[in-house]
Amino acid sequence: MKRTLIFKNKPVITATSTIAGPKESLGPIGKYIETRLDNDKFNEKTFEKAECKMLSYVIDGVIKNSNRKRESVNAILAGDLLNQIISSSYAARDFEIPYIGVYNACSTMSETLAIGSVLIDGGYMENVVCATGSHFATAERQYRYPLELGSVRPPQSQWTVTGAGATMLSKNGVGPKITMATFGRVVDFGITDANNMGAAMAPAALDTLVAHFNENNLSPKDYDLIITGDLGVFGSKILKDLAWEKGFDIFEKHIDCGALIYEPHEEEFQGGSGAGCSAVVLNSYFMDKFKNKEINKVFFLATGALLSTVSTQQGESIPCISHGVVIENRG
Amino acid sequence: MKRTLIFKNKPVITATSTIAGPKESLGPIGKYIETRLDNDKFNEKTFEKAECKMLSYVIDGVIKNSNRKRESVNAILAGDLLNQIISSSYAARDFEIPYIGVYNACSTMSETLAIGSVLIDGGYMENVVCATGSHFATAERQYRYPLELGSVRPPQSQWTVTGAGATMLSKNGVGPKITMATFGRVVDFGITDANNMGAAMAPAALDTLVAHFNENNLSPKDYDLIITGDLGVFGSKILKDLAWEKGFDIFEKHIDCGALIYEPHEEEFQGGSGAGCSAVVLNSYFMDKFKNKEINKVFFLATGALLSTVSTQQGESIPCISHGVVIENRG
Repeated sequence: MKRTLIFKNKPVITATSTIAGPKESLGPIGKYIETRLDNDKFNEKTFEKAECKMLSYVIDGVIKNSNRKRESVNAILAGDLLNQIISSSYAARDFEIPYIGVYNACSTMSETLAIGSVLIDGGYMENVVCATGSHFATAERQYRYPLELGSVRPPQSQWTVTGAGATMLSKNGVGPKITMATFGRVVDFGITDANNMGAAMAPAALDTLVAHFNENNLSPKDYDLIITGDLGVFGSKILKDLAWEKGFDIFEKHIDCGALIYEPHEEEFQGGSGAGCSAVVLNSYFMDKFKNKEINKVFFLATGALLSTVSTQQGESIPCISHGVVIENRG
Repeated sequence: MKRTLIFKNKPVITATSTIAGPKESLGPIGKYIETRLDNDKFNEKTFEKAECKMLSYVIDGVIKNSNRKRESVNAILAGDLLNQIISSSYAARDFEIPYIGVYNACSTMSETLAIGSVLIDGGYMENVVCATGSHFATAERQYRYPLELGSVRPPQSQWTVTGAGATMLSKNGVGPKITMATFGRVVDFGITDANNMGAAMAPAALDTLVAHFNENNLSPKDYDLIITGDLGVFGSKILKDLAWEKGFDIFEKHIDCGALIYEPHEEEFQGGSGAGCSAVVLNSYFMDKFKNKEINKVFFLATGALLSTVSTQQGESIPCISHGVVIENRG
C-alpha cells in the first residue's frame, strides 16, 4: 500500500511567521527570523506561558502576513511537546477558529503540513494554519532535569529550540506549493538513551525517505535539498550513511535544520532539536530561499521521537517517526 | 466560515473492535463489548503497558473484523490521554502501517473519525483505522493522585474508563456511513475544578452542536440521537439546558456515553469519562443499534478537556473542545 499522497490541486504556502529566543536569533539563520526575542520568557511569568504565547503570536502573525481575515481561516492544525500539547490548545483558545490538535513529537510540523494539504487539496477548506513550537526550558524541565539542577549535558545531546513557526496553507494565492506527502511509520531501532535522539530518529527518516523514492520512482537528483527536522550533526551523518547503504547518495543534498540553527562556537554539541526547530528554520530561512529561487524543490521530513518520561522510566526504547512533504516553486 | 465538511463519497464503517476492564464489562453495555478483561492490568507489569496493549489489541482486532489485510490499511489515526500519547505511539509500533498521532483529549475519537473521513472521502486512502483508549489507573496517577493515596473523590467527579475502541473507515464495504463532520473550537467558560469536567465541557459541545444545526439548517428532529462522549450525568443536564436556551430541544434526543457506561448502584457519581469512554460505547453498544436499525442517524460529539497538570498548577482554567461527526445507515 502506497504511503505517498499526490496533491493535484497543490496547496499554496501563502505566508509564514516565525519567532525565536535570543540564542536562536544570534545563530546563523537569525536574520531570517521574523520576531527575535531578547528574553526567553517573552515577558510571561512561566516558561510554559512563554511557549504558548510564542505559538499564539505566530498563528496571529501568519494570518496577518497572508492578508487574510480570521474568519476566512477554516482550521488551526497544531501540536507541541508539552504534556497534553497545552501550548497549542491554550494558543488556539485565543482564536475563534476550529482547532485540530496533533502530536508526533518533533515530526509535528510536517504532520500538520501533510494533513493541512489534504484538507485544502480535497476542497474541504480554503485556508489552514499549520503551527508548532518548543521551548528549551519547558522541554528540559519536562523531559530531563530542571534547569536549576545545573546538570551536565552529554556530548551526544542537542539543544531544544526556543521558537515557533506557522505556515498558512491556502487553496488560492501565490507561493511555493505542497505537491506530495509521504506519511511515516513508527520505527524503533532499540535506542534507549533519551540524550541521543539523532541516532534514534535517523532510521525513521530513512524509512520515509526510501519509501518516498521507491514508490514514486524518484531519487535525490529530483530534489534541490532533502531537509530533515532535528537529527542534529550526528544523526544527520547516520542518515547519510544509511541512505548510501540503501543505494541513495544524499551526501550533497541533505541538510538538517538542527545542524543549521546554532553556530559551532556555541558548543551545542549536535545542534538544535524540538518541534520548534524545523518550524522556525523551514518557515524563515528555507522560505526565503524559495522566494529567491535559490531552491525550487525540496523534500522536508521533520523527525520525531515518541518517548515520554514514563516510557523511559519503564525501560522502553524510543520509537520514532518522520512524515515528509514535497515543497516546490511551481507556476 | 463554515465548520462543517460534507462527505459526498460517504466513508463506510466496515468494522469496529472494543475492549474494556472488568468494571466496564459488568456495566449496562458490558454485553456489547467484544473483549471483556477480568484483570485491568491485562497481564502486563504496569497500567501504562496495559493501556497500550488494549489499544494495540483493538487495532489488530478491527483489521481482522474488517476482513482486511494489514497491507491494505493506509494509516492508523490514534491518540490517548497519556503524556506524549505514548499508548498510541507504542501501539502503532506493533504495525508496519503509517501512523498519524492526534490529540484533543477525550474528543480524540470523533477527531480521528473526522480526519479519517477526509482521507477516505477525498480519495487519498482506502482503509484507515481510527482508535483511542484510556485507563482509570494511568489517568488517576497522571492527572490527579496515585491510587495508593486513597484520595476521596468528590461528588462531581467521573470515573475514567478502562478500555479502548477502534473503527475501520473504508472507501468500499458495508456498514453505517459518515456523512458530515463539524470541527470544534476551543471554548473556555472559566471552570478551574479538574474534578468537574462535565461542566467545563458542556459549553464546547453546545458550541459545535449549535454551529452544526445552524450552518446546515438542521435540528434535533433530523437525528435519532445526539450522542456526547463523556459529559457525565451533570454535564449532560447542563448541555440540555444550554441547548434549550439556544432554541434546540434535545431533552429526548441526547444521550451521553459517560452517563451510560456504569450502573447507578456502582456509585461512580457523574459516570464515565476518558478518551476510551466514547470509543468503547460508540464502537460496541451504538454500532449494535445501527446494525439492528434501532438507530439510523446520529450526531456523535466526543468532548475533550484540554488541561494538563502543569496548566492546572499554573492557575489556568480548562479549555475544552468537541468535534462532531454524523453517522447514518444509508443505502
